[in-house]
Amino acid sequence: MKLAILAHGMFIGFGGKTARGVYLYSPHEIVAIIDRDRAGHDASEFFPGGRRVPIVKSIEEAGDYDTLVIGAAPIGGILPEDWRDEIKKALMEGKNVISGLHYFLSEDEEFRSIAEKTGAKIWDVRKPPENLKVADGSGKNVNTVLVAGTDCSVGKMITAVELTQEAKRRGINAGFVATGQTGIMIGCDAGAVIDRIPGDFMAGTVEEMVKKVGKEKEIVFVEGQGDIVHPAYSGVTLAILHGSYAKKIIIAHDPTRKEHSGYEGLGFPILSLEKTIELYEELAANVSGGKVVGISVDAEHMSEEEVERYIEKVESELGLPAENVLKTHARKLLDAVLKS
Amino acid sequence: MKLAILAHGMFIGFGGKTARGVYLYSPHEIVAIIDRDRAGHDASEFFPGGRRVPIVKSIEEAGDYDTLVIGAAPIGGILPEDWRDEIKKALMEGKNVISGLHYFLSEDEEFRSIAEKTGAKIWDVRKPPENLKVADGSGKNVNTVLVAGTDCSVGKMITAVELTQEAKRRGINAGFVATGQTGIMIGCDAGAVIDRIPGDFMAGTVEEMVKKVGKEKEIVFVEGQGDIVHPAYSGVTLAILHGSYAKKIIIAHDPTRKEHSGYEGLGFPILSLEKTIELYEELAANVSGGKVVGISVDAEHMSEEEVERYIEKVESELGLPAENVLKTHARKLLDAVLKS
Repeated sequence: MKLAILAHGMFIGFGGKTARGVYLYSPHEIVAIIDRDRAGHDASEFFPGGRRVPIVKSIEEAGDYDTLVIGAAPIGGILPEDWRDEIKKALMEGKNVISGLHYFLSEDEEFRSIAEKTGAKIWDVRKPPENLKVADGSGKNVNTVLVAGTDCSVGKMITAVELTQEAKRRGINAGFVATGQTGIMIGCDAGAVIDRIPGDFMAGTVEEMVKKVGKEKEIVFVEGQGDIVHPAYSGVTLAILHGSYAKKIIIAHDPTRKEHSGYEGLGFPILSLEKTIELYEELAANVSGGKVVGISVDAEHMSEEEVERYIEKVESELGLPAENVLKTHARKLLDAVLKS
Repeated sequence: MKLAILAHGMFIGFGGKTARGVYLYSPHEIVAIIDRDRAGHDASEFFPGGRRVPIVKSIEEAGDYDTLVIGAAPIGGILPEDWRDEIKKALMEGKNVISGLHYFLSEDEEFRSIAEKTGAKIWDVRKPPENLKVADGSGKNVNTVLVAGTDCSVGKMITAVELTQEAKRRGINAGFVATGQTGIMIGCDAGAVIDRIPGDFMAGTVEEMVKKVGKEKEIVFVEGQGDIVHPAYSGVTLAILHGSYAKKIIIAHDPTRKEHSGYEGLGFPILSLEKTIELYEELAANVSGGKVVGISVDAEHMSEEEVERYIEKVESELGLPAENVLKTHARKLLDAVLKS
């Protein structure tokens, strides 16, 4: 596969985490990122150590791609209307389209009829699996590590992927369960977009995935979603905590954030790390007995020095290891998982 | 409407709460309850003070009904296969069918084709509303009271209905928001089966309902679902806590229950009331600041004396009023809501 990532106005900043996740972690070649706001730059300018990928103005300049990835994760998962023409152009040229939106492109009459004519495939990764089931306790004994967090977009998926990769480098037979569109797009041992699944079946879907992966792997890293006090998504968060039967928990956290992203000024502050840890452990106590073993620091809005000071502070105050996994690849957090 | 309630093997016991809720609270006439296990009895034998309704063996004996209510709420919401013939018979005779199952009768080819021929209507109350939305904080200021609980089937819906009725008796302009099939079937000011709604939209759907009802009512009673540490349904529970922006919370609790219903022996104990109260308040703190103001005691498995002793114990140990609302119609709990 040769990917082009459609992410107008979002490759850097809010709403672009799918684009960035695919850029950073996809095993496939990426020929272009389409973002008119950053056109002319190279993605590696924003992510030191990242691969070189040109950012272009429109799909006309995307070059030799065969698959268009819709790299947006806006609140509500709707399709930005001004992206429609570029998606149509891709489908008309027979390119496949992968989308993680709640709005299913494969059910859009216009997109569908074009795809039928040209043979292009549309993959809506958010479509729920068939045969949904209610959690029944059968996944309770899988050796799971959940990466949870204090808000959306604080590096939960990245931390889970880094933990899995680091474990594999050490010869551990590790698996990764994705619960969101980006994790599925970049590759996982099992994946379903939990926020799209009807409430009764969310935990059961996670349980099925950890059971399946747990049969073949000695340790299963699970991507969490949202935050336990998020005004909109907390239900998804808790279903994943319980459905994964988390034995160990890593909390991803951006210390510069005071309110939930997208809800600034509305009175929904981020919980302290101390309270977050207490709540997760109390909610897990009667289901899996999971304990928090480390903190993944989202360092996006901090200088290197600030991050170092913050890590020292967390480690001395909470007695838990903290790490910026984009810098040191979850080596410290994996140590914490293995020794606890 | 003249109802017949289909509830084989479930009118008394697990899985029959929809049947019992409709029996106890529907404003419509009920001509028969169909339950082969209790045939020959009258429903009022099991519910002193309840209306007289014969329990019959099969739909053939149901008499002069015009609407068949599917009174089952089994785990997973599937249709008991041996109920199919009776539903077909009702549809063939042109009777309407109301169902709260996850399995949509209106999408079953066999049922649909019969209904089309005879003009019978099928209402699947669990079908999600159109135009789902993500919670955006706009319901934050509605005057809401949430009835939550320590497990499924501990009287949350009944408590919310009793509170609403008691408030109306006192001349208060009160509204009721239903979040499950039974509440919708017996009548509500707004209702949606939240456990059927995709995770991202659960809180937003509750928010829309409390906003709508809050425009016309001075106080809004919201039916909760599940339990905050339920292995399968906790996500739904938390989405309703946050989406309702609960200002006051009543906890429904059956003190004889030690493990979650349907999960006995699997290692999922019920939390203590103390811990439940603490967790609800901590989870509500950064979203609505809701506080627990009373306990609704599910007295189904206790003698009158045991209930009285338990109520005294709770009131002295927790300093919160406790009440068996089936006996005293939420008078004490409404006092607690109004004075707190």
